[in-house]
Order: sequence, then C-alpha cells, then structure tokens
Amino acid sequence: MSLDEFGLIDRIRSRTGARADIALGIGDDAALLLPAPGQQLVVTADTLNAGVHFPHETPAQDIGWKALAVNLSDLAAMGAQPAWCTLSLSLPESSASWVEGFAEGFFALADRHGMALVGGDTTRGPLAISITAMGQVPVGQALRRDGARPGDDVWVTGVPGEAGLALALWQQRQLAVAGPVAEPAREQLRLRLARPTPRLEAGLALRGLASAAIDVSDGLLADLGHVCARSGVAAEVMESSLPASQHASELQLGAAFEGLRAGAGDDYELCFTAPASARAQVAQSMASVAVRATRIGYIRTGSGVRLLDGEGKAVSRERSGFNHFSIGGQ
Amino acid sequence: MSLDEFGLIDRIRSRTGARADIALGIGDDAALLLPAPGQQLVVTADTLNAGVHFPHETPAQDIGWKALAVNLSDLAAMGAQPAWCTLSLSLPESSASWVEGFAEGFFALADRHGMALVGGDTTRGPLAISITAMGQVPVGQALRRDGARPGDDVWVTGVPGEAGLALALWQQRQLAVAGPVAEPAREQLRLRLARPTPRLEAGLALRGLASAAIDVSDGLLADLGHVCARSGVAAEVMESSLPASQHASELQLGAAFEGLRAGAGDDYELCFTAPASARAQVAQSMASVAVRATRIGYIRTGSGVRLLDGEGKAVSRERSGFNHFSIGGQ
Repeated sequence: MSLDEFGLIDRIRSRTGARADIALGIGDDAALLLPAPGQQLVVTADTLNAGVHFPHETPAQDIGWKALAVNLSDLAAMGAQPAWCTLSLSLPESSASWVEGFAEGFFALADRHGMALVGGDTTRGPLAISITAMGQVPVGQALRRDGARPGDDVWVTGVPGEAGLALALWQQRQLAVAGPVAEPAREQLRLRLARPTPRLEAGLALRGLASAAIDVSDGLLADLGHVCARSGVAAEVMESSLPASQHASELQLGAAFEGLRAGAGDDYELCFTAPASARAQVAQSMASVAVRATRIGYIRTGSGVRLLDGEGKAVSRERSGFNHFSIGGQ
Repeated sequence: MSLDEFGLIDRIRSRTGARADIALGIGDDAALLLPAPGQQLVVTADTLNAGVHFPHETPAQDIGWKALAVNLSDLAAMGAQPAWCTLSLSLPESSASWVEGFAEGFFALADRHGMALVGGDTTRGPLAISITAMGQVPVGQALRRDGARPGDDVWVTGVPGEAGLALALWQQRQLAVAGPVAEPAREQLRLRLARPTPRLEAGLALRGLASAAIDVSDGLLADLGHVCARSGVAAEVMESSLPASQHASELQLGAAFEGLRAGAGDDYELCFTAPASARAQVAQSMASVAVRATRIGYIRTGSGVRLLDGEGKAVSRERSGFNHFSIGGQ
C-alpha cells in the first residue's frame, strides 16, 4: 500500500549525471560535495504545486523541465554556475510512466547545464515539486538586486509577456498545454510557458557588467520593483521600448500581447541594470551568448517603477504582478 | 485571494539567525554562502506531509521542530556540523498564528544547533514541509554507510522503539498528540514522537571512531540493513541487548514496547558500527556528550540482518520497516 519510495528514487538515480566534485551522491544519509575554492555557494529553493503553478493536465515532461527551470533561473539571476540540486517529489500515486516522463524533462535541462541531482525524497501526497538548487560564483562577482544606481540603464532579455499570452490562450481554450500544436507560432508560445529557458549563459556573461539583476517570474514591473526597493532607487520603463513578439504578431494577437508585457509573469527572462558607459559591452556580451537583450529604461533617484508612454506620461497598468495561472484570468 | 507569500516569508525571515559565513541571506534571487576551506558540503533533503508523516492535529510548533529534526538527523548520521537550510512550505491557508507556531518550533531547534534559514518559499496547497539542510565536515571524516567491516560492533543511541510506542498509544487514543499530558512517562513518550532529538553531538563525537552510521527513521533492523547492503556485510543483533524503556515500564507497557524496538521507526537515533578495539573510546565519547549508547550486535561476513534470541536463534519480526503513522497500525 505504501508508495514504492525506493523504487522511484532508484529510477531517478539511474539518470543522475556525475560530476568530479561529488564525493558521495544519492544513497547515504546525505551527499558529500566539494565546493570549489574561492567560490561562494549560491542557494535557492522553489516549489511548484499542481493546480497553482501549472495546470493539472500538464505533461510530466514539461513539469520536470519547468520545476528545474525556475530554480536555474534564480541561479542565472545571480550570475552563478549551476552545480547540484535536491528534489522533493510529492506524488498522489506511484506511476512509473509519470516518473519516467518527469525525469526525461528534468534531466534534459539538468544535463544541458551540468546540474547533478544529489539527494531528495519522494512522498505520497498531492503533486508538488520542491527543488533546492546550488551553484557557485567567484567571491564578489554575484549579480545582486541591491546594486542599481541612478543613471544605470534597465535591460531585459528575450520577450517578456509571451508566457502570459500562452497562459491567456490556454485559459480561453485556444491552446492545449499538452503536446505540440500544428501552428508553429502557437507552439512557440506554448513552449514559452511550458518550457521556459533559464538565462544561465546570459547571467554568466553579465558578471562584472550588470550592476543588479533579477529574473522575471512575477512580472517585469513587479520584479524591477524588487530591484528598486533593494537598491533604494526608482526606475522608468518606456513602454514603446518593450520587445515586440513575433509570435503574437503572426497570430494577430499583438494588441492582447501589448497589455501583458509589463505585468505578466512566468517568463524567466533576466531584468538587469548596467551603467550607461557599459552599453556597448552589454550588447556585445549578450550577442556572444546569442541572447536578445533590449534596453527598456533608466534608473532614477527616488522609489518605485513608472511605465511611460511615448510622450513621457505615466501609463497605468493595473496588474502589479502575476500570481500564476490560478488567478491569472482575474 | 492569493496567499500572502511575502508576508509569510517576512514573518519567518525576522526569526532567521545570522552566521558570519552568510554573505547574502533571504531577499535576493538566491543566498550567497561561504563554505569553509577544507570542508565537504553535506546536503540532505526531507519532506513531511500532513496525514502521511504526522497526524493532521499535530500542533504547528511540533511540526516546525520535527520537519527540521529529521533533516538534522541526517546530518548527524554523517558526522556533519549544521550550517544552512532552505524551507519550502505549502500551506492550505494563510494563518499568522500557525506560521508563528511553526517558526517557534523550527527556530527553537535551529538556534540550538546554529542552523540558519537562508531561503525558501511558501505556496498554497496541502500542508507539506520540504527542507534541504546543509552542513560541513572535514574532508575524509564523514560517517558513511559503506564502512562497516566484519568484526565491528553494532551500536545504537537512545531507546529505539519509544517513538513507535507513542504512535501506537496515539492510534489507540491513549495519547493526544497536542499539548502536554499529566503523566510524566506518557509525556516523555509523546515528545519522542513529536520532538525527536537529532543526535548531532553524538555524530560529531563519532568522527574518526565509527566505521559506518545511519539514522533510525525506518526502523532499527531496516536501517541497519541499509548499512549492511552498502558495506557488503551482514549483521547480527541480540534482542536481549536492545535498550529497555523506562517510560514503557512505568506505564506497564513493557511487553508492547519489546515488539517495537527492532522494527518501529521515527526514532531518529543513530545506529553505527565501530571496531571492537574502539569499544572503550566509543563509550567514553558518548558519555562525553551525555548520549546513551548501547552495544547491540556484531558485523559478520555475508548479507542481511538477523535478530537473535538469548540462545542465538533467529527471531522473526515480520515488520521489516516502518512506513510512518498512516499505515503504522497494519
């Protein structure tokens, strides 16, 4: 009657990648790891709950990918190199095929970034995935939220709002969350929600360049607001500078998309600040890792974040943040 | 309508202890920590789910304590010194008093062992607590499961089976899990289940002495079986050597207790092996940290664990392990 805890762990363990800095992996009371000298340990933890952070019908592969992606995104926002993680998996029932699918998505992303699973557990309960991710960064080189200074540029990677558009389409039953769809633009949007790309290469490239950074999980303005609060500064964002979505245009959803760019979440892009003097270097470093980066505003003295229209007037966007799909339609 | 995630984190954060090796704590995308040179990082993760790992009516204080205790117990079994942890808390509703109670129990134990909370999140969902605990141990000094050798003694700390007896009493409605009870022996048993003591001082004292160690969570024989499997050896345990419970005697439950000593779990004692030549040193080191330790058997060549009666005959104990309270009565 009990969940075959050990069987599940074995199934996942067999997929675990090896790293030279793992003295002892899964199978003892704890893992033994060898942090690199001169590096700080970077630690973050994030949980995804079924029905709160993803629709119940989401395929196991996508859940495995996304649960790790949101954690890797936090490491990216610190400029960290991924190293090890633990996984706590709560499952309503023991299903070998579900676990296989989950592991497939999880390790597809983990292997890409040299991230090793070193511990965790499985318990019986409503579907939930808790991951603690560990990375490393040379002492003093981490990207933090508290370094933005008046005069700095504000940048964002990728196209924030596309995950929000995918969510809206799903809520309107215009997009299935399971399986590829025929229309390429729609499929690209689906993947933006189902399989976000943590911007690890961008984070590494921004060491020594960015003055502050955060990943966009709650929504662009809300997350930039966290940077401002920690740095003791204000920010102005030019709405006209926000990146356009080619996929939205192709689907003739440009207008719907525009309303989502500043407030919708779940994009896992990086929003960062850098001195205006580093503008060319930032552009070059982002190009070197093939990541689109757009300059969208400025850091000012004061507090809060203002979204400005083409004439420099404040635009009101009621949604200050994004609380995941369960209330995304409200 | 959304859970006040940030408010909850703030409430917990205000209780977070400081350590000199935390460069950046809660409040950024990730924490920045400074591992000590020459040490291995020891990492473990364990989840507790309401209704699976503890009765729903368990007080928040006890849940906070126990969720951390089971993780600290894994660090103890490695001989590690606790350092940092992350906490992922899934809550069915936002309740300030519940969170206060949880934090009280959690930090009562964390502060005792210098364990700092450095990250985590709160989500809305069925009550579940996932903790990843990190500790440190000098390179090469960790207690592992794979070092037991034929001829070694088998030891156990404390009185395994008392948590199981408390559980049985609770299931028979002879023990409430909430609040102190008048009878001292019954209250002591209740605490053995509700507030287990991770044997961290014992683990530290056993560095360089024990050849292998594990914490007793599944049941004494089952956990010793894990040591044997990893070490490639067998073990014999003398039933008559297993520690008696004073509390059980006082409550005239000696007979019921005897049947639980070898198989019941949730005790979070340490079961360890050590060379016979180190017998006096082990006794001395355990006395120095005021931990009762009992020699209960021997490591042999072969495989598996046998429980022997006074005449050296194998005793059959059907229960090979303990799957927490939900099926404890079966």
